Amino acid sequence: MADHYLTKESILDTAEQVLRRFGPEKTSVVDVARALNVSHGTIYRHFPSKASLREAVAERWLHTISLPLEVVFKQDCSASERLRLWLKTLIHIKHTLVQEDPELFTMYTTLVEESVDVVNAHIGELIGQIIPIIEEGITNQEFKSTDPAATASGIFMATARFHHPAHAKEWTSPTINQEFNIVWNLIHSGIVK
Amino acid sequence: MADHYLTKESILDTAEQVLRRFGPEKTSVVDVARALNVSHGTIYRHFPSKASLREAVAERWLHTISLPLEVVFKQDCSASERLRLWLKTLIHIKHTLVQEDPELFTMYTTLVEESVDVVNAHIGELIGQIIPIIEEGITNQEFKSTDPAATASGIFMATARFHHPAHAKEWTSPTINQEFNIVWNLIHSGIVK
Repeated sequence: MADHYLTKESILDTAEQVLRRFGPEKTSVVDVARALNVSHGTIYRHFPSKASLREAVAERWLHTISLPLEVVFKQDCSASERLRLWLKTLIHIKHTLVQEDPELFTMYTTLVEESVDVVNAHIGELIGQIIPIIEEGITNQEFKSTDPAATASGIFMATARFHHPAHAKEWTSPTINQEFNIVWNLIHSGIVK
Repeated sequence: MADHYLTKESILDTAEQVLRRFGPEKTSVVDVARALNVSHGTIYRHFPSKASLREAVAERWLHTISLPLEVVFKQDCSASERLRLWLKTLIHIKHTLVQEDPELFTMYTTLVEESVDVVNAHIGELIGQIIPIIEEGITNQEFKSTDPAATASGIFMATARFHHPAHAKEWTSPTINQEFNIVWNLIHSGIVK
């Protein structure tokens, strides 16, 4: 591939394919360059280090999780329903990713966990989507929270069992939806007026 | 050691030492028998299989977590305070075990996770300790729950981030206590009248 066709996106597409084929341990920048038929120096012009290339792959994958969540803001419903829908959508996305390809899910979560900054930015983005729902509920007189950021962060942490990748093995439990309802009822009861 | 001195407890003591030395992958019943200077047939008279010996080691370790929790029932305090104390004690025990010897903690959690029955019995025992606290709060007119078992199970799941071994790496975070307080406030607000 000629260098001038090489965009960040096309490098990430190839890096993703190479990572899937070789696994995160064995993938080098040289492997990615070889697959693109360019020198590794060309890759380094777009990504200053191997770590930054891996981070960019991890970030792009995390956006496939956080972007579809924005659809819940288009629903015409109460803040309670929006919050429940947001959580159910996040959980559905995560559980589907594991079900479809457990090894690939493990590969991406391994990449994500390599960078504390990437993890924190993702958590910040997700909690940042919950905050306006809490604010909406306060404005509506639905929720009694006085600190939307803390409430959003508490809701995110209290539902970790259903969306944190460390619990992925537990998501196949036949009672997982029932368990979510129990936690949801507890949380909801803690925020409604 | 002569066979007639051999109790289940002394076999478990030795099995624990051997597991610590060789690790869960490499430890066999023969290793445990050798350390006790008995034949492996002698061990099998007390534990019918290698799996049952490992389960017994796992169960004994889990009791070192669940037993100290019973002290909270001797405190003279409100049900809210007792519930918070129970959670803080569980979290303190788990965090201390990881801090003192992270490798040993991983070894025991690996053993525990080998048996779904052992895991479920332990979770059942812990939730079984929360239920009477919820019932006490209902009797006291402190809590509004109508289903103590569901409320107890919801509280246990909603605090997983602070006591589930899959989150052990996150327990060193400098903000972990603050995060517990946020989740506690959310839960508590969901159960008080």
